Amino acid sequence: MITIGIVGGTGYTGAELLRLLAGHPRAEVRAITSRGNAGTRVDAMFPGLRGAVDLRFTEPDVAELAACDLVFFATPNGTAMQMVPELLDAGTRIIDLGADFRLRDVASWEAWYGMAHACPERLADAVYGLPEIHRASIREARLVANPGCYPTAVALGWLPLVEAGLVGLDALVADCKSGVSGAGRKAQVPTLFGEANENFRAYGAAGHRHLPEIRQTLERVAGGPVGLTFVPHLVPMTRGMQASLYAPLADATVDLQELFEARYAEEPFVDVLPAGSHPETRTVRGTNMCRIAVHQPQDGRTAIVFSVIDNLTKGAASQAVQNMNLMCGLDETAGLSGVAVLP
Amino acid sequence: MITIGIVGGTGYTGAELLRLLAGHPRAEVRAITSRGNAGTRVDAMFPGLRGAVDLRFTEPDVAELAACDLVFFATPNGTAMQMVPELLDAGTRIIDLGADFRLRDVASWEAWYGMAHACPERLADAVYGLPEIHRASIREARLVANPGCYPTAVALGWLPLVEAGLVGLDALVADCKSGVSGAGRKAQVPTLFGEANENFRAYGAAGHRHLPEIRQTLERVAGGPVGLTFVPHLVPMTRGMQASLYAPLADATVDLQELFEARYAEEPFVDVLPAGSHPETRTVRGTNMCRIAVHQPQDGRTAIVFSVIDNLTKGAASQAVQNMNLMCGLDETAGLSGVAVLP
Amino acid sequence: MITIGIVGGTGYTGAELLRLLAGHPRAEVRAITSRGNAGTRVDAMFPGLRGAVDLRFTEPDVAELAACDLVFFATPNGTAMQMVPELLDAGTRIIDLGADFRLRDVASWEAWYGMAHACPERLADAVYGLPEIHRASIREARLVANPGCYPTAVALGWLPLVEAGLVGLDALVADCKSGVSGAGRKAQVPTLFGEANENFRAYGAAGHRHLPEIRQTLERVAGGPVGLTFVPHLVPMTRGMQASLYAPLADATVDLQELFEARYAEEPFVDVLPAGSHPETRTVRGTNMCRIAVHQPQDGRTAIVFSVIDNLTKGAASQAVQNMNLMCGLDETAGLSGVAVLP
Amino acid sequence: MITIGIVGGTGYTGAELLRLLAGHPRAEVRAITSRGNAGTRVDAMFPGLRGAVDLRFTEPDVAELAACDLVFFATPNGTAMQMVPELLDAGTRIIDLGADFRLRDVASWEAWYGMAHACPERLADAVYGLPEIHRASIREARLVANPGCYPTAVALGWLPLVEAGLVGLDALVADCKSGVSGAGRKAQVPTLFGEANENFRAYGAAGHRHLPEIRQTLERVAGGPVGLTFVPHLVPMTRGMQASLYAPLADATVDLQELFEARYAEEPFVDVLPAGSHPETRTVRGTNMCRIAVHQPQDGRTAIVFSVIDNLTKGAASQAVQNMNLMCGLDETAGLSGVAVLP
Repeated sequence: MITIGIVGGTGYTGAELLRLLAGHPRAEVRAITSRGNAGTRVDAMFPGLRGAVDLRFTEPDVAELAACDLVFFATPNGTAMQMVPELLDAGTRIIDLGADFRLRDVASWEAWYGMAHACPERLADAVYGLPEIHRASIREARLVANPGCYPTAVALGWLPLVEAGLVGLDALVADCKSGVSGAGRKAQVPTLFGEANENFRAYGAAGHRHLPEIRQTLERVAGGPVGLTFVPHLVPMTRGMQASLYAPLADATVDLQELFEARYAEEPFVDVLPAGSHPETRTVRGTNMCRIAVHQPQDGRTAIVFSVIDNLTKGAASQAVQNMNLMCGLDETAGLSGVAVLP
Repeated sequence: MITIGIVGGTGYTGAELLRLLAGHPRAEVRAITSRGNAGTRVDAMFPGLRGAVDLRFTEPDVAELAACDLVFFATPNGTAMQMVPELLDAGTRIIDLGADFRLRDVASWEAWYGMAHACPERLADAVYGLPEIHRASIREARLVANPGCYPTAVALGWLPLVEAGLVGLDALVADCKSGVSGAGRKAQVPTLFGEANENFRAYGAAGHRHLPEIRQTLERVAGGPVGLTFVPHLVPMTRGMQASLYAPLADATVDLQELFEARYAEEPFVDVLPAGSHPETRTVRGTNMCRIAVHQPQDGRTAIVFSVIDNLTKGAASQAVQNMNLMCGLDETAGLSGVAVLP
Repeated sequence: MITIGIVGGTGYTGAELLRLLAGHPRAEVRAITSRGNAGTRVDAMFPGLRGAVDLRFTEPDVAELAACDLVFFATPNGTAMQMVPELLDAGTRIIDLGADFRLRDVASWEAWYGMAHACPERLADAVYGLPEIHRASIREARLVANPGCYPTAVALGWLPLVEAGLVGLDALVADCKSGVSGAGRKAQVPTLFGEANENFRAYGAAGHRHLPEIRQTLERVAGGPVGLTFVPHLVPMTRGMQASLYAPLADATVDLQELFEARYAEEPFVDVLPAGSHPETRTVRGTNMCRIAVHQPQDGRTAIVFSVIDNLTKGAASQAVQNMNLMCGLDETAGLSGVAVLP
Repeated sequence: MITIGIVGGTGYTGAELLRLLAGHPRAEVRAITSRGNAGTRVDAMFPGLRGAVDLRFTEPDVAELAACDLVFFATPNGTAMQMVPELLDAGTRIIDLGADFRLRDVASWEAWYGMAHACPERLADAVYGLPEIHRASIREARLVANPGCYPTAVALGWLPLVEAGLVGLDALVADCKSGVSGAGRKAQVPTLFGEANENFRAYGAAGHRHLPEIRQTLERVAGGPVGLTFVPHLVPMTRGMQASLYAPLADATVDLQELFEARYAEEPFVDVLPAGSHPETRTVRGTNMCRIAVHQPQDGRTAIVFSVIDNLTKGAASQAVQNMNLMCGLDETAGLSGVAVLP
């Protein structure tokens, strides 16, 4: 069994890691930390895990974590970078579900996240954990930066088009929508039920932290600069995320359906829907699947891609488990075969 | 008092007309028709109207309707055009909340709506009921085609930019989101609670009937062809609509905030939010208000406009009452001063 | 115009008071206080009030409040009692939407609310503001204790039966359900969207603060002790409350429908539905109405009453305005004629 | 592998059977029927099953079904009884998720369901499929009547008290609440999103079909007549059910917590929560678990039990799989170990 530590277990991504690892055939969680809840049984906070998880939260302890084969950080931005160097030096593999190691450019990271980076020298060692692009590197990685939710949905939606050089890269529009759980389990007014229910709104139009992350990914694939407009919106549902992607087509004659199907034919967690489809977020709820549909309506000059994921699973916890599987030489799909519960 | 008939009173827009007219100081509903529910008390079907509406549904009767000063059609597409000529000839004014008179081009109408038009010769008499553009004509009109919900939100959002000639008209993207009530009160599987709740999806990407209506409006303002990508999405909430509008700016130096505030300074039902805002659909719920914010992020080359309305009020019933007020020489805001109930 | 002060304007009941008073023909809000948000425009916090409320939050100032004809306290429990004596002495009338003056027994209040009462000598002056029972006293009151939401729904549901002495008072069961806004606009985990959505649960089964309030009301009407089981539940909706009331009937032959209709025939805000009905919370949303249905199924030995209100209006803010109307000699229904926005 | 047929695969319980059986280690679905959708791929109707179910709907064919080891009926009431005799005679085992075989009394069944029973002579052969009461009989059964959702939640909640003879059986109150999916996937107005969202209401207070089923179960356990008031309510959520159960205690000194824990100590799918708990429906979503808490507040004379299940799983499909496991000699928990996806 692979032994696992989880730092920061009281948020939604931590709870999802617990659920997924409880059903994983080859992983065993040894420690789950929470400064504020040390001593509390995990299933007292998350009664849905009664019978499945028999652990208590503990104070984070580097020695205890270093004894694990792999440690997940499900912590607020800025936390993982404090502990990562010591754990790496101890030989522990790390997957950070936060943003500390997602951007390769230190200055950009510090500007967007508003703090100094604690270990900029480790950024070059981090592999960006999007298996559909970086599978080989992830297999060798000691430190994986698990992608953000929006960046996952957007990158998977545009990847075939950008790789094929088919779209004008200076006028991309990503109109994205997320369920409220994306804001985490922190007590705050804007995500109260009374505020978020029966309401729809955009946020962060002036610039969201996932913008540089998306741009970095697309620019690495494109090999050049990308002009991107990215607007996130808040949907009155708990889980689910859709990226609606608009791109001017350089060549309107290519069969986009065929292109997408070919690109993702071997991917276990990307499902290209039949032509004419509109993916539904609920079909991926709780799963590691990304469902995609591509359209080329009217005059054919604009490619529209709809990409849906569950923001807490393929957008966070289950993608982290997928990365764990790769890093530990397991079947990439181990523990990730669940089907969405519908309706 | 202005005497009113409503044809088709059992849907959501019919019920909203009843609510709004019950609180209107100068209008009195004399007849409300429903073939399937003739004889039923209105407040037996809509208990929220107990004490406010003391009417029974009746079979549609042209003579009875013709005796009213004004008749609203809150009927499925294709119904109003059957009765409109006779009522017009009888001197009754008409507001059609359906689509029968929205498009000026008969061929286009017949192609998008899949049926022959019953009175194409009357199309030229119909005034498109968007007061912010056609106020003067509406005042004189005998027949008003009340705009669709998406076309209202989109047109009001882009109007200042298109009038000012500031945006590239060949690459407009309108990513729109609507609450489920937009699909009406018809029994059908896709809008069951179990299907629409906790789910987000696009629909109609290949071409939605509101596309030609939006294009017609923008082209009349622009005086030339418009290249528009329009995608509607379904949001798991009952009411509310947001248009997120993306347009390449021809001139990145114009002060868009000032432009929008100036354009709508005198409009009673368009509220331009302070710079940096993100309008919330709930703030317009049940009202005739459209709230708009304009952004010009990052390199400044793209104008982003967020326009929110309530799909059943400014997107249907209350805009119809606004048109009634104009047609009947009343204060344009009569009966429309309600404030959204929050939370 | 009646001049109004509101202490504590940033919660849901404060916002509702603002909405209702903005549409009131005879009241004018002069001051609305918030320690934490003094200086902020009200419509910056509540954009739905743009154009309807032109005020800024101020620091609470007794002199300024004392200059108003009437002051509403929309504050956490324990706040009003600190300021009430001074304001009463200054001749200002007061309606407390909190619980400080609801219980007549000081010891009971201090036990349930866990603090010493700051002005127990004023409790006897407070009138319990349920107009359907205490209308005459409210008209004369200087200090009104506005009822809690559950106590309003429960009392109105059982009132005809208890007044008529028809039910066994030792085995009453009140199974009550509330929308999430009942918990207020305070940042806390349990009422986050992610926690409350798609979930149903009871709470406070061991004893909720509304229990002694309900019992006090029923015992005053019954003139003797009442054995009551009261369990509140949390419903995944923003607004609305239903009390499902079960009581053993002492006499199974009485016509309960007739009894209820007679009791409430003159009440403007209690609507007894036709026999066999099931009231819906949405039909009273945003209104001051209580809708009631009474059933006597199967063997006829148990009376079932369903009583629905909007927890934030008849359960708080609009009932407070109803009390204001009575205290100030206005039409009891002034400003309270709004109809629920459906769907 | 156990070979499986499913009759009626286009409703919510049929879809849930497919999901559960797709993950079952010992069962294989060979046929799934739908008159209206024969020929359609299952995953075209339920895209969440893409990659998990590779079947098309077929016309119901008795020979094909008889070739299966076991057939589930997920059909409207009155359908299964038409085919059951022939299949039983062919040696096929049957689990009916409908109501055709739930009541032992033919006259009562015909009165409540409003039709003649097609095979009353088979009623005596049917075993009521609540494993916590009838496990041994289910193991031997050829025909299992899978319990209704409300009857499951209510029976499990009261079972320990009724078995122990602790409650007065003439004054039981079951106030039950269900998510909207309980009404099925049929197109109808009352369960449209626009009707059910942001709304709470009771229904069926005059008498619901689950009432005789609950009474039959309790009376068999009690060995005598039961006086039961049962009221179902509709909650604006997709899944989940809570029974709030009120019963007068004959003996207020018994330790109810201990009683419940002892009764369910060996039950794999009944989880008695710690004293003072309030179970949440979301903790059992998509699972076969029933979570129960028992309270004895105030004067101790009333036992309150909260029992939560997922109406579509323990209240239908997963309980059917549990019964299948028992009937086929498999591990009772096979394929049923999933944990609720939270939030």
